[in-house]
Amino acid sequence: MSSQTEPQTIAPAAAGTTALPAEVAARLKRDGTGLVAAIIQQHDSGEVLMLGWMDDEALHRTLTSGRVTFYSRSRREYWRKGDTSGHVQWVKSVALDCDGDALLVKVDQVGAACHTGTRTCFDGRMLDATAGTGVQ
Amino acid sequence: MSSQTEPQTIAPAAAGTTALPAEVAARLKRDGTGLVAAIIQQHDSGEVLMLGWMDDEALHRTLTSGRVTFYSRSRREYWRKGDTSGHVQWVKSVALDCDGDALLVKVDQVGAACHTGTRTCFDGRMLDATAGTGVQ
Repeated sequence: MSSQTEPQTIAPAAAGTTALPAEVAARLKRDGTGLVAAIIQQHDSGEVLMLGWMDDEALHRTLTSGRVTFYSRSRREYWRKGDTSGHVQWVKSVALDCDGDALLVKVDQVGAACHTGTRTCFDGRMLDATAGTGVQ
Repeated sequence: MSSQTEPQTIAPAAAGTTALPAEVAARLKRDGTGLVAAIIQQHDSGEVLMLGWMDDEALHRTLTSGRVTFYSRSRREYWRKGDTSGHVQWVKSVALDCDGDALLVKVDQVGAACHTGTRTCFDGRMLDATAGTGVQ
């Protein structure tokens, strides 16, 4: 028996094992690790704040608690946005896309959405891109 | 030898094997299948139009051609948005998020972004959600 304590990690919930309504669960197209992408958008300004990941349980909590909960792929645990930072995301609406692999969660973001302190996770992180001309 | 012709499918490009600049490739945190998520947003209205997936080669094409190219997980091939539908996405800007697993591509969308004919892939696809009160 090891004397070391492993960090407590939680695998994503298997489909159909959570309180997520069956008709919603049936529409999800999860990736190989059981997750769907969740785009978080500021409801009034339209800013795209960040992208996170949800399994069925994280989506259930997001739909029912008024606060956004993600599943962390790196830490393998649930995290409710703002619990440590105070930067809470209040849920305004949730939509699931046509093929079931992406959620659009409109929120009211308290403070910075990014753990680096920027308002969004994309601020100041532009790539060099050739703009389209609008002429094919 | 089989008499059947298999559909031509292409695996996502391995990291470092495309013309994507090395400094960009080094920032990508690809999933287990070599892809990152790409959020597509209408540049002026702020509408989130859809979510697609890109490998290094799709991102390279998107950054250099003025048109958005995705990697289709289901068809296992590249697809340049609008080639069959006419619903072209003209690139306005591309940003990579803080941890390298999501792109925000601002575009000028011609016509409907969704293959179902709706303007966005989220239109009319709301889930029942309890809104947050703004009081913790």
